[in-house]
Amino acid sequence: MALIVAKFGGTSVADTGRIERASQKIVQEVNTGHKVVVVVSAMSGVTNQLVDYCSKISPIHDVREYDAVVSSGEQVTAGLMAMALQKHGVIARSWLGWQIPIKTDLVHGKARIDSIETKELIKRLNGGEVAVVPGFQGVTDLNRVSTLGRGGSDTTAVALAAALNADRCDIYTDVDGVYTADPRIVPNARKINIIAYEEMLELASLGSKVLQTRSVEMGAKNGVPIQVLSSFGDEVGSALKGTLVTTEDKIVEQEVVTGIAHSVDEAKVTVVGVKDVPGVAARLFQPLAAAMVNVDMIVQNISSKGYTDMTFTVPHNELDLAVKTIKDNVDLSYKDLLVDENVAKVSVVGIGMRSHAGVANTMFKTLSEKNINIQVISTSEIKISVLIGDDYTELAVRSLHFAYGLEEG
Amino acid sequence: MALIVAKFGGTSVADTGRIERASQKIVQEVNTGHKVVVVVSAMSGVTNQLVDYCSKISPIHDVREYDAVVSSGEQVTAGLMAMALQKHGVIARSWLGWQIPIKTDLVHGKARIDSIETKELIKRLNGGEVAVVPGFQGVTDLNRVSTLGRGGSDTTAVALAAALNADRCDIYTDVDGVYTADPRIVPNARKINIIAYEEMLELASLGSKVLQTRSVEMGAKNGVPIQVLSSFGDEVGSALKGTLVTTEDKIVEQEVVTGIAHSVDEAKVTVVGVKDVPGVAARLFQPLAAAMVNVDMIVQNISSKGYTDMTFTVPHNELDLAVKTIKDNVDLSYKDLLVDENVAKVSVVGIGMRSHAGVANTMFKTLSEKNINIQVISTSEIKISVLIGDDYTELAVRSLHFAYGLEEG
Repeated sequence: MALIVAKFGGTSVADTGRIERASQKIVQEVNTGHKVVVVVSAMSGVTNQLVDYCSKISPIHDVREYDAVVSSGEQVTAGLMAMALQKHGVIARSWLGWQIPIKTDLVHGKARIDSIETKELIKRLNGGEVAVVPGFQGVTDLNRVSTLGRGGSDTTAVALAAALNADRCDIYTDVDGVYTADPRIVPNARKINIIAYEEMLELASLGSKVLQTRSVEMGAKNGVPIQVLSSFGDEVGSALKGTLVTTEDKIVEQEVVTGIAHSVDEAKVTVVGVKDVPGVAARLFQPLAAAMVNVDMIVQNISSKGYTDMTFTVPHNELDLAVKTIKDNVDLSYKDLLVDENVAKVSVVGIGMRSHAGVANTMFKTLSEKNINIQVISTSEIKISVLIGDDYTELAVRSLHFAYGLEEG
Repeated sequence: MALIVAKFGGTSVADTGRIERASQKIVQEVNTGHKVVVVVSAMSGVTNQLVDYCSKISPIHDVREYDAVVSSGEQVTAGLMAMALQKHGVIARSWLGWQIPIKTDLVHGKARIDSIETKELIKRLNGGEVAVVPGFQGVTDLNRVSTLGRGGSDTTAVALAAALNADRCDIYTDVDGVYTADPRIVPNARKINIIAYEEMLELASLGSKVLQTRSVEMGAKNGVPIQVLSSFGDEVGSALKGTLVTTEDKIVEQEVVTGIAHSVDEAKVTVVGVKDVPGVAARLFQPLAAAMVNVDMIVQNISSKGYTDMTFTVPHNELDLAVKTIKDNVDLSYKDLLVDENVAKVSVVGIGMRSHAGVANTMFKTLSEKNINIQVISTSEIKISVLIGDDYTELAVRSLHFAYGLEEG
């Protein structure tokens, strides 16, 4: 009999019918003898509505009041979920962030969890009670409601699982798992049954947006197995039919390549002809960091005649800010500033590539055979990313998926 | 410089535009030097939506979870109101029920306030800060959110005014005051500038639904002057252009009759031919009370040959329950059970009638002149109520309004 934290996202609790359906899964788990903590998001659309109210009242507003407003969405779902469970004869109650309490730091709007008091929860779980916890919210030392930032409900779920030493954290969502590639591009992509935290991190940050990066990191740090699964199917979490994210050593049959990720939300910036002297990178990227620009890939090649080019990518909606920052705040002489919005990043991810040679070569050869020009290459221990023209995104992903033998069956 | 509690009802905070407008009134009060606590309802429609969710999840649900769900509406408005005030340069923050705390008993869904901690609030009010408090909610000794029942935001406002020893409690709503009769029936009805608590109680419970009975009682008990005024006009509360509800001794020019109230939500039940022996009334009304039937007027006339008739009124939607209760649970033999749904109650209210003779006579004479048959009469110290055929409601109210000289000018 396991202790499970089960989290339902916004689409899984979008209306009372879906809350009812989600509650039935928990009832099944409880009837099998499992102890369950349920974490719920706001009903889909609610948080956006509340954020919109705040913006309408005042474009620049007190984040503490913003937190009081937007945290209410999850509060509603938590009460409704507790009622739904009770209807099926399960003993359940809602626990708001301040009631547990889930203590966070004072950084309202994107607070981090400092501690979770579990004594009372554990007592009640042992007594057969289900705890329903609104995700995304906590309370500060000043006794005010805080929120964890977008996607914070996943963080709440994994943090609770860690604090309670749970056997598993099930993330019920609108997809039935993590795939070897985006099924909209690769129809015969295969659902991954088990994947390592590190791989999931690379896939998540590269565009497979099923799990928040922060919650995967927290799962890895605390050794909490996280399962991504669909709330719309008939299966419950304990049937283990989703994708389980866990430690590398639990994965018996390790593939060389686990999946192909891609992102078209990339813009490429090249600072041409900067002097190749120590401190150049710092002088370029420090002002960008200060301006809150999320720089992703960074590539610097060897210099020619004392000058070099610095290339990096940023999300599309931060391109203007990045360019403005370089022009206004970067104390660096350069010959030209080139910008290309029509690029895509395609990445091959797999822990297996640590111990297998030739993975990169297969990638370059495959792209070459399709006449796809590689603009930038960047590698890590378990990932190879390339930047290509975004027209070629689908072709590249499909070709690589086939080349690494990832298809179903 | 006064300490004012200002409460805005649902229509006064129906959207962000109206919240902005309401906030401007508070800004004016603050700039004049007043200390202000703002109490807000949920944006109109929100509470009904939340109640509807609860009913859909489970027709019979845990009231503690219901409270967690429905209290969220006021929480949202409180955060937004604090933001709106801050935008205008006023120092403001929201205070949720559990943060103050407003302690209530354990009767979830219709809790009563036990105590309000005011030390921190007073310190901050003295420092020029505005406190924004969501109405309708409190917290129990078990640390769970409770709600005060429908109209509870008025109760929150008056209770806060009492606890803070405020100079006045302004109830901003969608009407500009209390009238001598319903202006939809009597176009030349006059706005009452000042009225005694007792009169307001009779008018409120008789159908002028601008102020919750409970909050008027609380105002009377604690000597808090309550002003009813419109949030849509340009005036702020301190201009005293609404209707002030206060103690009798503050009213200099006391009219004999203050207003004419009416209610068409009445059904008449007559139990015919019960034995006129001690204990009959108890045997009839005790089971009705146990069945939660709200019995209003009760009339028993003298007996004839040892038998008597008992007549009482109930709200329309409780008539079936009342009849069923009498048939099933009342241990009383009677000859017949008569029911009439087509009745209206018309009442003449005024503290002045204590010291003036002939008030009742004017009523009876007026109705008689219009050929309106009086079915039942019931009187109190400051009110005379009659039951008539509901077809005659408007005629009766207009005639009485004229007879007592209540019209404008």
